[in-house]
Amino acid sequence: MTAPELANDSFLRACLRQPTDHTPVWLMRQAGRYLPEYMATRTRAGSFMGLATSPDYATEVTLQPLDRWPLDAAILFSDILTVPDAMGLGLSFAAGEGPRFAHPVRDEAAVAALRVPDMARLRYVFDAVASIRRALLTSDAEGRRVARVPLIGFSGSPWTLACYMVEGGGSDDYRLVKTMLYARPDLMHRMLGIVADAVAAYLNAQIDAGAQAAMIFDSWGGVLADGVFQSFSLAYTRRVVQALQREHEGRRVPVIVFTKGGGLWLDEIAGCGADVVGLDWTMDLGRARAAVGSRVALQGNLDPAVLFAPPQTVAREAQAVLDRFGAPQRTDGGWDGHIFNLGHGIQQLTPPEHVSALVEAVHTHSRRLRGADAARASK
Amino acid sequence: MTAPELANDSFLRACLRQPTDHTPVWLMRQAGRYLPEYMATRTRAGSFMGLATSPDYATEVTLQPLDRWPLDAAILFSDILTVPDAMGLGLSFAAGEGPRFAHPVRDEAAVAALRVPDMARLRYVFDAVASIRRALLTSDAEGRRVARVPLIGFSGSPWTLACYMVEGGGSDDYRLVKTMLYARPDLMHRMLGIVADAVAAYLNAQIDAGAQAAMIFDSWGGVLADGVFQSFSLAYTRRVVQALQREHEGRRVPVIVFTKGGGLWLDEIAGCGADVVGLDWTMDLGRARAAVGSRVALQGNLDPAVLFAPPQTVAREAQAVLDRFGAPQRTDGGWDGHIFNLGHGIQQLTPPEHVSALVEAVHTHSRRLRGADAARASK
Repeated sequence: MTAPELANDSFLRACLRQPTDHTPVWLMRQAGRYLPEYMATRTRAGSFMGLATSPDYATEVTLQPLDRWPLDAAILFSDILTVPDAMGLGLSFAAGEGPRFAHPVRDEAAVAALRVPDMARLRYVFDAVASIRRALLTSDAEGRRVARVPLIGFSGSPWTLACYMVEGGGSDDYRLVKTMLYARPDLMHRMLGIVADAVAAYLNAQIDAGAQAAMIFDSWGGVLADGVFQSFSLAYTRRVVQALQREHEGRRVPVIVFTKGGGLWLDEIAGCGADVVGLDWTMDLGRARAAVGSRVALQGNLDPAVLFAPPQTVAREAQAVLDRFGAPQRTDGGWDGHIFNLGHGIQQLTPPEHVSALVEAVHTHSRRLRGADAARASK
Repeated sequence: MTAPELANDSFLRACLRQPTDHTPVWLMRQAGRYLPEYMATRTRAGSFMGLATSPDYATEVTLQPLDRWPLDAAILFSDILTVPDAMGLGLSFAAGEGPRFAHPVRDEAAVAALRVPDMARLRYVFDAVASIRRALLTSDAEGRRVARVPLIGFSGSPWTLACYMVEGGGSDDYRLVKTMLYARPDLMHRMLGIVADAVAAYLNAQIDAGAQAAMIFDSWGGVLADGVFQSFSLAYTRRVVQALQREHEGRRVPVIVFTKGGGLWLDEIAGCGADVVGLDWTMDLGRARAAVGSRVALQGNLDPAVLFAPPQTVAREAQAVLDRFGAPQRTDGGWDGHIFNLGHGIQQLTPPEHVSALVEAVHTHSRRLRGADAARASK
């Protein structure tokens, strides 16, 4: 069976470094608390976990930002901690606080008890993927069934999940997980190996269910020391990437790796096998493009705080990001691909109307850049 | 009047890229909560502010780590927010919480009211500097009065102070200060200019009082976007550096600039006029050394979390940092200087006996590296 065609495949094309007529844009955490309609759904769901574990609610909130703006991709609404929860760590969210695990992994016995979980325990996620794919179907001008945009599946990186699993929740100093890493590197490697295999199985099941790209969030890779990052974070991200199916429904499934604070390691990250590397706002996109050459496409990298400024400023800063990357050009392995995004998740107090200015500016200015480039080339 | 000689001038020599027989070591926040004797003094002082504003107590806690370990420098015990407090923002510390300003700077009127404070309001700091200098005096083997080690003075960078001044305390998203930056860059520049002049006056007064080196902590420079960092943080750090007196008591006064998360901007930071650039643990020291060449000395960069591991691991990781830098070598402008430090402040739960292993390892291994180098050179 072949999948319905995409009405807008600019995101997948840019990931694979194929030409596009505009720079595709989506926003990390685009379905979230800054949207009043999201808050309304969450209230109906009763809790965050009620929202995240219901395929119907997950579908509803995943589509909300797409109904407001012409974003070029959807991303599965889910929590980053579904995999450790399925491993039996007992995830909960206290009101007004972050995630908590009832059974953190802090000693040899706890590591020895870890297993790649039965993916059946994560069926609610794969059901959500299938449900979102159905909800993205629409009819084009000729009445054919087409998908509006592709759907991105995701997981936390092994290291990032391990941080939560050892700390038992969020942390600002990573004391427990780093103590294990430095004091018992053997335990930490054993744990990361199991988590990596679990993440690979999880992402492959999302792809089977219909995810058309896979993103790995290494949110806490940047807290590691040089040298340690390569051995304890990037090595396990690579292990996941190498275990992923890269083709499904007759299409290539691109993989995106995003390490917050990973700019110093861009060269090594670009060699991990991913198609796209995500960048936070500390990295100059022009410099990044020169560093990765034609090896990968780049995703990013506007500071989410720009969205607190007035719409004209948002538009100007978005244009500046596009200008830093420059017009896509043909290189050895294809085109230089750029997917516009924020450098981290959109923040809760972001005024939605500022997002309108952002999406509009990215689409308009990136078309203008391509036109200017074409005009120069034809002279 | 010339100052008493230094019994141990290895820190100042390394800052100025002069040869030393070992790599000097000190630790950011070395006088602090991980030391039981510090906690005892703080209890006697009644509060953190009571401690920080008393020259006697500040002297006492500044010397505590030096009485435990053969550290190669002392650093003034003080708070980073003394300057905004002197500007009238009303600093307080609630029990178990971070700093709070009663009068944060959030609008045009508040910025217009900002002035470089009368340095007389900060006299308790300068008195502490003078008192610590006296307390560092000792007699050498021949009975001469000498200073045990040099004393480092410090300030927050203009940008880092502005973060606290606008947010009103600590922050994890920098929403208010970044909103002002993006929405009203004119206001932010005006504020940073005033703060930079205040910081320069403050550090110059510390040098007058006896500080033998000046360190600028740009703790939050790393939260800024590329391009924004250069305009709103580094430009004002440079303005401070250029306004500092660089010679006092017949000696050169080195300036150290430390930007947490600033590795991507190392090349630009190295050009700001400082003698030394501090690095956090995300940067490879060998790569950093190659990047800065003979322009500046480097300070850093062990992950403070290493100190939670057993002493043998602490020693091994300290050696690895020294090995990454390599043996100091003569270059065009002097020697490649390295001052060993952590990549950020020492953490509260650090076992003091692990610090013993660290200091011992740095001194022993760095002497060994120099010896090995000399042996190779003589072959």
